[in-house]
Amino acid sequence: MNSDIKKNRMTDVTLTLWKSDGTPLANQQVTVEQTNHDFLFGTAASDLIPLTNGEYIGGEKESAEQRAEKITALFNAVTLPFYWARFEPQKGNPITEKVKNAARWCLDHKMLTKGHPLCWHTLTADWLLDMSNAEILQAQTARIKRDVSDFRDLIDMWDVINEAVIMPVFDKYDNGITRLCKELGRIKMIKAMFETARDTNPTATLLINDFDVSSAYDILVEGCLEAGILFDVIGIQSHMHQGWWGVEKTLRVLENFERFNLPIHFTETTLVSGHLMSPEIVDLNDYQVTDWPTTPEGEERQAEQAIQHYKTLFAHPLVEGITWWDLSDGGWLNAPAGLIRKDGSIKPAYEELTKLVKGEWWVTPMKLLTNSNGEIHFSGFFGQYKC
Amino acid sequence: MNSDIKKNRMTDVTLTLWKSDGTPLANQQVTVEQTNHDFLFGTAASDLIPLTNGEYIGGEKESAEQRAEKITALFNAVTLPFYWARFEPQKGNPITEKVKNAARWCLDHKMLTKGHPLCWHTLTADWLLDMSNAEILQAQTARIKRDVSDFRDLIDMWDVINEAVIMPVFDKYDNGITRLCKELGRIKMIKAMFETARDTNPTATLLINDFDVSSAYDILVEGCLEAGILFDVIGIQSHMHQGWWGVEKTLRVLENFERFNLPIHFTETTLVSGHLMSPEIVDLNDYQVTDWPTTPEGEERQAEQAIQHYKTLFAHPLVEGITWWDLSDGGWLNAPAGLIRKDGSIKPAYEELTKLVKGEWWVTPMKLLTNSNGEIHFSGFFGQYKC
Repeated sequence: MNSDIKKNRMTDVTLTLWKSDGTPLANQQVTVEQTNHDFLFGTAASDLIPLTNGEYIGGEKESAEQRAEKITALFNAVTLPFYWARFEPQKGNPITEKVKNAARWCLDHKMLTKGHPLCWHTLTADWLLDMSNAEILQAQTARIKRDVSDFRDLIDMWDVINEAVIMPVFDKYDNGITRLCKELGRIKMIKAMFETARDTNPTATLLINDFDVSSAYDILVEGCLEAGILFDVIGIQSHMHQGWWGVEKTLRVLENFERFNLPIHFTETTLVSGHLMSPEIVDLNDYQVTDWPTTPEGEERQAEQAIQHYKTLFAHPLVEGITWWDLSDGGWLNAPAGLIRKDGSIKPAYEELTKLVKGEWWVTPMKLLTNSNGEIHFSGFFGQYKC
Repeated sequence: MNSDIKKNRMTDVTLTLWKSDGTPLANQQVTVEQTNHDFLFGTAASDLIPLTNGEYIGGEKESAEQRAEKITALFNAVTLPFYWARFEPQKGNPITEKVKNAARWCLDHKMLTKGHPLCWHTLTADWLLDMSNAEILQAQTARIKRDVSDFRDLIDMWDVINEAVIMPVFDKYDNGITRLCKELGRIKMIKAMFETARDTNPTATLLINDFDVSSAYDILVEGCLEAGILFDVIGIQSHMHQGWWGVEKTLRVLENFERFNLPIHFTETTLVSGHLMSPEIVDLNDYQVTDWPTTPEGEERQAEQAIQHYKTLFAHPLVEGITWWDLSDGGWLNAPAGLIRKDGSIKPAYEELTKLVKGEWWVTPMKLLTNSNGEIHFSGFFGQYKC
């Protein structure tokens, strides 16, 4: 095993076991096993919403249930969608209850759930376009207050603002959030969103998130921190439709954020198992295809690169989570980016990640003998254990 | 004339002329003429230092004097070099007196002088490498205090910090300033330099300056402003060795900085009159040639593009200065970037800029008749006039 993984992800434990009469449980054989990771192994899983709301029937329902089983077998975290255009297509009619059902399912299955995102120019509500900037700001902060409050204890982790680097200069189409950000500037915009989320749920874990991994992003983070904005986690997207970054670039990106000494999540990790998107495409959304097949060679490549990518990130002391995007083929951009094929079968990458997350990086049940003081010693990954 | 130039650079003046006895100078013919622009038309001119220190002899001296005449004929501003490695090659022995002679020459010729730069990782003092970061910070701020103070009233405009976007991640070679910036972060570094310069000369005009015109720079400026750093001017380099930006890119770059509503200087403007540097070169310093000739076609192109570039910038309400870089061929990178050829003759670009700066944008002597109240009315460019 990579020595940095050993150093940064494992610890030596001494546990003293007591009998109910208060004396040490000496010289007894006990079984210790890991039940969860502290590290977040997550996936985007928007189809938990229709599944948990009875919207699938017949074979579709069965497939969705099988996918859900594959989520719980590998992952301990789920990102649920809060795209405003879909969450509240008509002003005043949010789909709160539907999303709550999905979040409750996650909680019942011991999955930590993150809401994504609270503020973003893409997929924001169309009806903001009828408002003045002052009204947009009011609506956006009211939305944050409402949703962070409504979901408290179900969802206490949020991508508060998404893609702020491009937000004020986004020029694909007019939208209320870009208008507002252009007026306020990025830092005042971010500050308003974080302060609203923090006030509403002071113990929530709040992320800034971006796909831009140039200096622009770490300079923005620095500007926000100097302006007193408190991030809990820096979120980095890594949609690698154009090819795996490789270890070197991944480490270089991480290096740009190390100086902040804040936890880092790789919030949106994509590796396709089909042909790669052409490198000259700047906005991935410009690549629209009706068919983007998964291939055997592509699946081997995806598996190999997923292993390397997860090993690189798991070894880094500041990284605390990786989210796969999407779970199944045919999600965003219709890409073969899933760990599961369209027919519901798993790809090699799913198997390889399971070997890591629940194998190499997992303490399987082991029999240990307590000493005369009732102590056992073992070395394990940060997480939950039962004894 | 471009209507924006008319709107942003000209004003209507009503002037009342009085006789020494306190009555209006009615119905008299007077001559009004412009003597200077408020707008800064500048040039880099490091060879003013050897010239004003008697280091040229014979034909070299004559050539340098002719170049100096060409400076005063076209420009009203000069950028003098303060590269630390050259300004103080041995710790404690700065060439202050030499540079003062050049600055004094500029003052005598009614040229505004700017010092460039006070803090930069490139061409910084080698002897910083023997110091701890705390000592480097102390030496760097002491340098600023000393030079800003020594040159007060001769030089009251400074590029305080140069290329802060790349400063902490500059990896061409180890240097003290990159080390310090990596530790402090960009914003704390910039703050320290600006506060020192401001404290030393509160009325000086202080610039931040960068070649990076991506979002990283305007996001850095925003972060600095939110952190309370006071810039007087935002400096933008435009070394176009790889080809003229064109009007569209120039306006797009300007647009990124408009929201700050601060004056903008184009601090280092290069257009070559020879072949263009290949577009795939990222760091211009990587292009090292012994010969880079000026050509007749190149000179026509340079002249045409210089006209367009200056017109674009002169029309923009926030731009208050443009500095050409370098005055003569064979300066930085040995490029044919001059307005003057190596043999001392002027290129078409020099003539065309003169036609603008001292022609189309200049009020030549005009005879006006005062009315019965002693008033004359005229329309002119912001600047100085005599009557």
